[in-house]
Amino acid sequence: MTTQFRGVVPPVVTPLREDRTFDEASFDKQINRMIDAGVHGLFVLGSSGEVAFSTDARRREVLAATQRVVQGRVPVLAGVIDTQTERVIEHIRVCEEYGVDGIVATAPFYALGGEAQVERHFRALREATDLPIFAYDIPVCVHTKLSVDLLIRLGKDGVIQGVKDSSGDDVSFRLLCLRNKEEGHPLALFTGHEVVVDGAYMSGADGSVPGLGNVDPDGYVRQWNAYEAGDWEAVRAEQDRLADVMKVAMSAKGISGYGAGVGGFKTALQLMGVFESNQMPEPVSALTGENVEAVRAVLVRNGLLEG
Amino acid sequence: MTTQFRGVVPPVVTPLREDRTFDEASFDKQINRMIDAGVHGLFVLGSSGEVAFSTDARRREVLAATQRVVQGRVPVLAGVIDTQTERVIEHIRVCEEYGVDGIVATAPFYALGGEAQVERHFRALREATDLPIFAYDIPVCVHTKLSVDLLIRLGKDGVIQGVKDSSGDDVSFRLLCLRNKEEGHPLALFTGHEVVVDGAYMSGADGSVPGLGNVDPDGYVRQWNAYEAGDWEAVRAEQDRLADVMKVAMSAKGISGYGAGVGGFKTALQLMGVFESNQMPEPVSALTGENVEAVRAVLVRNGLLEG
Amino acid sequence: MTTQFRGVVPPVVTPLREDRTFDEASFDKQINRMIDAGVHGLFVLGSSGEVAFSTDARRREVLAATQRVVQGRVPVLAGVIDTQTERVIEHIRVCEEYGVDGIVATAPFYALGGEAQVERHFRALREATDLPIFAYDIPVCVHTKLSVDLLIRLGKDGVIQGVKDSSGDDVSFRLLCLRNKEEGHPLALFTGHEVVVDGAYMSGADGSVPGLGNVDPDGYVRQWNAYEAGDWEAVRAEQDRLADVMKVAMSAKGISGYGAGVGGFKTALQLMGVFESNQMPEPVSALTGENVEAVRAVLVRNGLLEG
Amino acid sequence: MTTQFRGVVPPVVTPLREDRTFDEASFDKQINRMIDAGVHGLFVLGSSGEVAFSTDARRREVLAATQRVVQGRVPVLAGVIDTQTERVIEHIRVCEEYGVDGIVATAPFYALGGEAQVERHFRALREATDLPIFAYDIPVCVHTKLSVDLLIRLGKDGVIQGVKDSSGDDVSFRLLCLRNKEEGHPLALFTGHEVVVDGAYMSGADGSVPGLGNVDPDGYVRQWNAYEAGDWEAVRAEQDRLADVMKVAMSAKGISGYGAGVGGFKTALQLMGVFESNQMPEPVSALTGENVEAVRAVLVRNGLLEG
Repeated sequence: MTTQFRGVVPPVVTPLREDRTFDEASFDKQINRMIDAGVHGLFVLGSSGEVAFSTDARRREVLAATQRVVQGRVPVLAGVIDTQTERVIEHIRVCEEYGVDGIVATAPFYALGGEAQVERHFRALREATDLPIFAYDIPVCVHTKLSVDLLIRLGKDGVIQGVKDSSGDDVSFRLLCLRNKEEGHPLALFTGHEVVVDGAYMSGADGSVPGLGNVDPDGYVRQWNAYEAGDWEAVRAEQDRLADVMKVAMSAKGISGYGAGVGGFKTALQLMGVFESNQMPEPVSALTGENVEAVRAVLVRNGLLEG
Repeated sequence: MTTQFRGVVPPVVTPLREDRTFDEASFDKQINRMIDAGVHGLFVLGSSGEVAFSTDARRREVLAATQRVVQGRVPVLAGVIDTQTERVIEHIRVCEEYGVDGIVATAPFYALGGEAQVERHFRALREATDLPIFAYDIPVCVHTKLSVDLLIRLGKDGVIQGVKDSSGDDVSFRLLCLRNKEEGHPLALFTGHEVVVDGAYMSGADGSVPGLGNVDPDGYVRQWNAYEAGDWEAVRAEQDRLADVMKVAMSAKGISGYGAGVGGFKTALQLMGVFESNQMPEPVSALTGENVEAVRAVLVRNGLLEG
Repeated sequence: MTTQFRGVVPPVVTPLREDRTFDEASFDKQINRMIDAGVHGLFVLGSSGEVAFSTDARRREVLAATQRVVQGRVPVLAGVIDTQTERVIEHIRVCEEYGVDGIVATAPFYALGGEAQVERHFRALREATDLPIFAYDIPVCVHTKLSVDLLIRLGKDGVIQGVKDSSGDDVSFRLLCLRNKEEGHPLALFTGHEVVVDGAYMSGADGSVPGLGNVDPDGYVRQWNAYEAGDWEAVRAEQDRLADVMKVAMSAKGISGYGAGVGGFKTALQLMGVFESNQMPEPVSALTGENVEAVRAVLVRNGLLEG
Repeated sequence: MTTQFRGVVPPVVTPLREDRTFDEASFDKQINRMIDAGVHGLFVLGSSGEVAFSTDARRREVLAATQRVVQGRVPVLAGVIDTQTERVIEHIRVCEEYGVDGIVATAPFYALGGEAQVERHFRALREATDLPIFAYDIPVCVHTKLSVDLLIRLGKDGVIQGVKDSSGDDVSFRLLCLRNKEEGHPLALFTGHEVVVDGAYMSGADGSVPGLGNVDPDGYVRQWNAYEAGDWEAVRAEQDRLADVMKVAMSAKGISGYGAGVGGFKTALQLMGVFESNQMPEPVSALTGENVEAVRAVLVRNGLLEG
């Protein structure tokens, strides 16, 4: 089994109306806008896609909308994130209904275990589906780091076909890329850290999954094209620019974590006229007042919004 | 709103058959055995009740069986543990169907936030139900510690009615007990640490939620009665004995966390003839071989099994 | 080798003048005051004795003053805390000059290792001295937890003679007490958590090392006497009172950690007329203004200072 | 105040004889070998230079040897690492005696504080010396991350002149580089992560402090020259090669942390004939047997040792 994923695959942010219902019209606009910008795939129901906040019904709404609007123009990854194996398999079943091209699963969380359980978890998912599986390495959320040895072993055995690395551990990612090359490239390796994609490309990444790609998909596509062309100065200059745009997700005062980060992306998209609202799911508050103005200032100075 | 919970309220372990279906016959035996021992309440679908491993269908199976077998003989708490607010509220709706006497919710997890979001989470749960709510303080699973100030504020505002403390922070628990007393005892305070229940009683706890109470409910009931009678030497001696029994959950080699702990409880219950199997949910392996014998030795030397 | 330590052994706070020189007159007053209150030993140059802030010259000043003022009235423990083995052994040599009755050493810190290195560290210390050695379990400072197995092994081999437990892990402490009893009591076990000493006594502790004993030595001595007499209600009531007095170290606003904790002790001692100043070592600020008044209020309401 | 540091500045590993005395002859060979390879500076008494294991006398031995052998051919940084401010200032005084060109200090550790104390610490160091100060960001050892805001503030105020980043947080390092550029480049920014130096150069680093530079200084010098020439493909290819060489520090079985890492460097240097012994300081064991052979294999396959 191989996977067709390569390039820029943004994790799609999920727009809500003020009353916290799913805003399908804004979702459609956002999907089309990213495809038009040239992204190479889309990842729905990731951490940025508020999967942890989404009921099963909401997950279906997002998957159905994705299938309807994407229409196969780019391949689609879907998150099946949940605490433990059986619950994840239920989400896989739903994803299969909606025709996705791959699923993304984390290590199990909440209950404690060791690496043997993490390995068994991924093997149980493989037994349950024929879809390509991406291992999502995100210790800040699940409090387990996926080791290079484990990932390579799962890759060689055909259990997983790719990795989304949001571990913040660039040393480990480099070593993973090198091992993957030595082993004949069984895994498609993506970085989730939008501020240092250039470093990940230096390491040999097969692509990126930048949350900021919701706000500025053109920038990440330009950077990918420069990478493909071997124009490292352009890769790097684009990265410096995108690092400044990233401040939409880093400027909020008095609010931390998800509310500042994804809240900043949603606020940017509302200011840019893509989203109707910057509403956040319970128990997170949407950005307001000065925090909205801080986002606006970042967009204006980077030419993404008129001043 | 007040709560009737007080005394020993074991978190009920969920028996599985070899094929991982729910073993209702063993569950009934176990519930009746604990009620006969004199426990003062039961807590289903807690961490030890493998809530994180349970599909929605499994959660319903457990709730239905609980309602059928308990028949109101003791009050019942049910876990509604999930990643974020909307998902937790869905579990609360189901619990309401099955007539539980209170629900137990953790801080939100997976996505990162701050204390303001944790507070909003509990307030949103209160807006969604009239059931008593216990805050479950379990940082080892959710990676957030509930502060004394937050818990007391929620208690005084009628948002929560109790706390199950599995934080491992006995200093904080003592300070919580003292503040709760000063404020007129708005909260029922339970410890989840079965090895130091005597210390929690010294601190003024209203009861305990000992996982080991599945194996030896008599011991915890005797200890509670000694506490009520002011017989501290008996409280302490019983605790020393129970600390040795606890080794059923601490003796496994080559397996850590949930598989050793709840795996040890299940193995003990199988050896004692209460459970048909010591099967564990995916991706956890059941104890085998020497690890089973280690559990047997603990039971035998404590008189819970014939040698 | 055995140790004579048992009972209440406060970690002595180090008084400074405004110019941060060592205030020997206040130190003498404080030592005499605690011995007069009936403490069973003293621990100088512990974490609360600002060992980590003290130059080698300062350590000598404290040791010399201790030897001069204590005059053998109670046994003395001295901290030899430093990053790694050779540096700790240098501190042991100095302690030997000043005639202490035991030394207190943590796991090595700063550089990373595993349990084998921690074990070798303590064995190397034993090879270097004939003094009794207490292992100081303080993961919040050194980021290593000393396991029950390691401590018992070192105790049985005569490497260490006691443990000061400031790990905050009451479950582990209970299990350590039980194992120690099973093995013939090779170790003298002390708790460093002044708010839950009653729980540690329930677990079978041989004594306590309460920082708060600097402020209220009489309370801890009364509690110990009640423990010796088997009067658990008195043990518990004294603990509740002391938990309120502990708020001298927990009430500061805008300052955290050492500055609030030991800063609170020093401020209390200044307000009570024992210390000339509440000065703290660089880079820590002394409490001022409202934070001093908060300490005063705690002392007044507990009868330790006239209102 | 500005600093002349730029380029490749390896943290010098400290050779020991079998009896753990300082092996000055091997030290001289190693220093000359690195200078001959073209390194742009040297950093003695860093984490890799076993500063945490070194007595004050050992620190003086290393500083004296450094001064004698370097003879001003390249600028020298010296670590002044210790728990808290006054102890660090004592080390600074010694460094001043030996004519170093800058000192390297971490955040205070062992006792807990907040960012205000970290800031005061660095300001107190500045008040105590006229030497350039590098802030060493190494949370894995000191358990505090230096924030971009703090570092930039200290840089603009002339408190620090540079940063050695061993935080493992490449996102933060990128943002630090960008802020530093915006503010007129007050800080010289170095990465300590030898496996991803290319990513740090993409971020705009002023140089690197690679422990592996002890083993293969030529590789890092070639990489720097390629960076200066804008030849990114060469930067990247050299990095991939060096990542494989790094396995000298990552291949040990049954030993973790410092013993595997610096132990691997020392073993490589012994095999290459530079060091007389691969001895490690107490309580760390030197690599032996299979672990030595694993290091040999890495050197041979990378052409650093004949097979």
